[in-house]
Amino acid sequence: MKASEIETGEASMIQKSPAAGINRGMTILDVILRLVAIASTVAGAVVMATSDQQLQFFTQVAVFNVEYDDFSTLRYFVVINSLAAAYFALSIPLALMQIARSAAKQSRALLIIMDTVTLGLLMSAASAAAAILFLAHNGNNSANWNSICNQFTDFCHRASGSLIGSFIAIVILMLLIFMSTAALARS
Amino acid sequence: MKASEIETGEASMIQKSPAAGINRGMTILDVILRLVAIASTVAGAVVMATSDQQLQFFTQVAVFNVEYDDFSTLRYFVVINSLAAAYFALSIPLALMQIARSAAKQSRALLIIMDTVTLGLLMSAASAAAAILFLAHNGNNSANWNSICNQFTDFCHRASGSLIGSFIAIVILMLLIFMSTAALARS
Repeated sequence: MKASEIETGEASMIQKSPAAGINRGMTILDVILRLVAIASTVAGAVVMATSDQQLQFFTQVAVFNVEYDDFSTLRYFVVINSLAAAYFALSIPLALMQIARSAAKQSRALLIIMDTVTLGLLMSAASAAAAILFLAHNGNNSANWNSICNQFTDFCHRASGSLIGSFIAIVILMLLIFMSTAALARS
Repeated sequence: MKASEIETGEASMIQKSPAAGINRGMTILDVILRLVAIASTVAGAVVMATSDQQLQFFTQVAVFNVEYDDFSTLRYFVVINSLAAAYFALSIPLALMQIARSAAKQSRALLIIMDTVTLGLLMSAASAAAAILFLAHNGNNSANWNSICNQFTDFCHRASGSLIGSFIAIVILMLLIFMSTAALARS
């Protein structure tokens, strides 16, 4: 045990034990995952915010228009995804601090707590939007709500696609919380 | 390097310090919160599952009926709330183990991870149901979906009320995760 520690100790000042090496690898993975999460939440917000479609029926001299802005749930989705992207960007410095001080328990605990709050917000936004888009696709007979995706195909495609970005960020957040918790239990 | 040996070893050392007293108090609070969460998720599931209303218009010789079962999102809500209640019940023994072995880091980390998954599921179910009920209350002009709560007042009241139970459990889960994370960072 001691001999191997001395050997690896020459390479780096921080790497005092094998656990520190694992923690550093995990921190780099943590930061990469946060970068992917920024990209997916930004993509989700942008694709949703640009979802609109106009239908013109010349015979009826009427214009029908649907956009994300007509649904408060989809507006909420755009706001929360933008906030989540900002949070991921701001959390990277805190995550990077874990490399320098691999046993920084307080900052790791803070990251878990903030990640959990973001997970809750993002899950609520994505699920609410999914429920509305499910309705847009399938309609509901009992409530007499018709499917609007037959007519507004483009709008439905774009809006549904934007959910993917949000759900990727949710999976990443879960992974980040699991990794941080495991690191905290090891330390 | 058996984990249980280390855990019990640490426990006997730490139990003499004031930190052990705080941890034991937190564990009792943890179990009480889980009991409240069982009650609120069961209440949420039961109230939602019994939400139905029949309207008869004699002039039209027609019967209109709406129940939670007509909306797949509300069915999902009932299933997830029932599963969450079962999880809370099953997690109590694991939470109680923290009293006996106040430094049992592995089981605490396991609780955080399982609580996080439950939080995600419960948040998705409650938010999706909230989105549908928001639509039932307000309708949507662009999609030409009418509010159904003018007619089905009872149904809407019951179904919306059931959300409260679910959101209480969500707040409790957040608190539990924060408490466990703080305890893990302290130990």
